[in-house]
Amino acid sequence: MVRSTLERLKNNFSLPIVILANGELPAHKKPISIIKNAGTIICTDGAINNAIALGRSPQVVIGDMDSISSNPIPDGVKYIKFTDQNNTDLEKTLDWCLYNDISAVTLLGLTGKREDHTISNFAIMADYVDKLNLLSVTDYHEIQAISQDQEFNCVPNSTVSIIPIRGKPIISTQGLYYPLKKEVLKNSGQGISNISKDRKFIIKVYDGLILVFIRHSD
Amino acid sequence: MVRSTLERLKNNFSLPIVILANGELPAHKKPISIIKNAGTIICTDGAINNAIALGRSPQVVIGDMDSISSNPIPDGVKYIKFTDQNNTDLEKTLDWCLYNDISAVTLLGLTGKREDHTISNFAIMADYVDKLNLLSVTDYHEIQAISQDQEFNCVPNSTVSIIPIRGKPIISTQGLYYPLKKEVLKNSGQGISNISKDRKFIIKVYDGLILVFIRHSD
Repeated sequence: MVRSTLERLKNNFSLPIVILANGELPAHKKPISIIKNAGTIICTDGAINNAIALGRSPQVVIGDMDSISSNPIPDGVKYIKFTDQNNTDLEKTLDWCLYNDISAVTLLGLTGKREDHTISNFAIMADYVDKLNLLSVTDYHEIQAISQDQEFNCVPNSTVSIIPIRGKPIISTQGLYYPLKKEVLKNSGQGISNISKDRKFIIKVYDGLILVFIRHSD
Repeated sequence: MVRSTLERLKNNFSLPIVILANGELPAHKKPISIIKNAGTIICTDGAINNAIALGRSPQVVIGDMDSISSNPIPDGVKYIKFTDQNNTDLEKTLDWCLYNDISAVTLLGLTGKREDHTISNFAIMADYVDKLNLLSVTDYHEIQAISQDQEFNCVPNSTVSIIPIRGKPIISTQGLYYPLKKEVLKNSGQGISNISKDRKFIIKVYDGLILVFIRHSD
């Protein structure tokens, strides 16, 4: 695809861009506000029903179209069907975003309901860490996968969980109540429920890949 | 601790033994039936409130006791307090099971609510794969971590998801609609939503560690 076509497609998407996946219908004011203020909404397959339930009609629906309900489909929705059984609707959607030169997306509806999807969706966030700027917002957390140093903004005394998702991550933290100093998390629960001291904290990643969960303050 | 003491403690626990964790209150008939028929119920910390909501009083409660509600505590409940901040209540509880020579446990309430706990709980199942026989039952799935060959019983046409949890697992399958032959799962979504052909299937694990999700048939 030539550059000019990419640019043309890119310009079709008003920012911010939100992907709504087929997990639990968001209920917390934070994800609700994100979907209400989205410039472009892309649904994975059956998540179109969630978008409609939240009062928004998506611009694009991507998937194998096996979980669309029989509700009438709103006018103006662009359907893109992929039938590859070797990847999920979320992977199809993220690949489509890359193809369309999209660089930053907020992900909603990644969790809740089927746990196989929840854990696979987190692994997929890790797969795309170097390709797309992804932030997942759930009823509980803002979640990012990171493989390099990053500064995070937050409310003071936020609950922050750091969980290995690939390899044996070696990390340091600054600004958290229980500091880590260039160390491997020794067990799977060790990084759960740390606390931010102030309005920001820093995580340095020396090796591996982690998920960072910042809990909503209200 | 001498052997005779271990035996004495072990004999205090009627089988089957269930650990109830502090995730979403189980609602599906399968986990509900498991808690109703449990010989011994061990709660992680605040999950005692879930046990009571389901009409059962636990024999043991383990944790740092930071999330017990102010409800009156039933008589006869044994409280065991650990204050180590470096591991979670689930890890404390599994360690206590090992200490008490318990070999097989069904885990309920591992998922739902906070996603950092959900994903950490799955990683913890993987940590204990060679130490304890663990089966997690949720409103959607029966879930096991496995590191070696295993045969599974199921209903024909069950949805079966296979997800890498440690290393780069190399596996083969027999009895699933989309077979794998001594191969690495190429992407994080590839193992989602396979289907069992009959009343059993086999997974051979050559390397790494996987989670196997069998979806409830009703």
